[in-house]
Amino acid sequence: MFKKRNNIKEIEEGKYLEPKFDKNGLIPVITTDNKTGDILMHGYMNDEAFIKTIETKEAHYWSRSRNSIWHKGQTSGFVQIVKEIRIDDDQDSVWLSVDIGDGASCHVGYRSCFYRSVPLGKIKNAKNIKIKFKESKKIFDPKKVYKDEPNPTKI
Amino acid sequence: MFKKRNNIKEIEEGKYLEPKFDKNGLIPVITTDNKTGDILMHGYMNDEAFIKTIETKEAHYWSRSRNSIWHKGQTSGFVQIVKEIRIDDDQDSVWLSVDIGDGASCHVGYRSCFYRSVPLGKIKNAKNIKIKFKESKKIFDPKKVYKDEPNPTKI
Repeated sequence: MFKKRNNIKEIEEGKYLEPKFDKNGLIPVITTDNKTGDILMHGYMNDEAFIKTIETKEAHYWSRSRNSIWHKGQTSGFVQIVKEIRIDDDQDSVWLSVDIGDGASCHVGYRSCFYRSVPLGKIKNAKNIKIKFKESKKIFDPKKVYKDEPNPTKI
Repeated sequence: MFKKRNNIKEIEEGKYLEPKFDKNGLIPVITTDNKTGDILMHGYMNDEAFIKTIETKEAHYWSRSRNSIWHKGQTSGFVQIVKEIRIDDDQDSVWLSVDIGDGASCHVGYRSCFYRSVPLGKIKNAKNIKIKFKESKKIFDPKKVYKDEPNPTKI
């Protein structure tokens, strides 16, 4: 679908989009809030989701739990308006800078999926590392929004 | 090594670090510049790299090209001082906020690995999408720094 990768110099310093999808056909995607710079989520796209995101300017991902294209916000209403897309040096990961207004991006209800912080320093017991909440307020109630949909979090 | 994952509510809203490593034993890591908020790189850690990062407060990754622990900056001198670590809702990805001073994080020489932007809008031919450079100045000369080391970028 995209330009074929056949030259490392071209991939790193050329001017064509030549994304690398892994053996499952996916490329990792980092999504940040264009106003605060905070990371909202980490997801994946297949080639079709990547094309749809570029063309519609709304973030589309590949849902690994549902095994299908995922137009973010279809259920919750929190569509992500894409302001910029960046690709990295070896073109195997994507950065989306998006506008979500006052919305949320996390299925648990928080604005960012990264709502907990890991303490730094000497670890006494790795089985007992306590993490701290950095967001205290949920933007929405997942039970009301997602109703009986299965939780994408897997053990 | 870490606390065992056995309860979704605990994983999402509990207070223990219970990271999920994929079948290769890796977890994706997003690294941002703590001053500008820009994404510097996207990498991976195994459990040992994660522990070392927490304890030393210097970013350690798993190098998939060299198949070994990678203390970022060992060759280039551009060590990443970790200011904060966040974990996401289902604990399968990590956000490192780091201080790299005036340094660089990209092996091509740029400050960020995400130095090119993908244009938005209707695609005429996906094999011919031109990307734009957003950084113009290399912080270092990779040939001088890495000498004969193999390029981590693979086709």
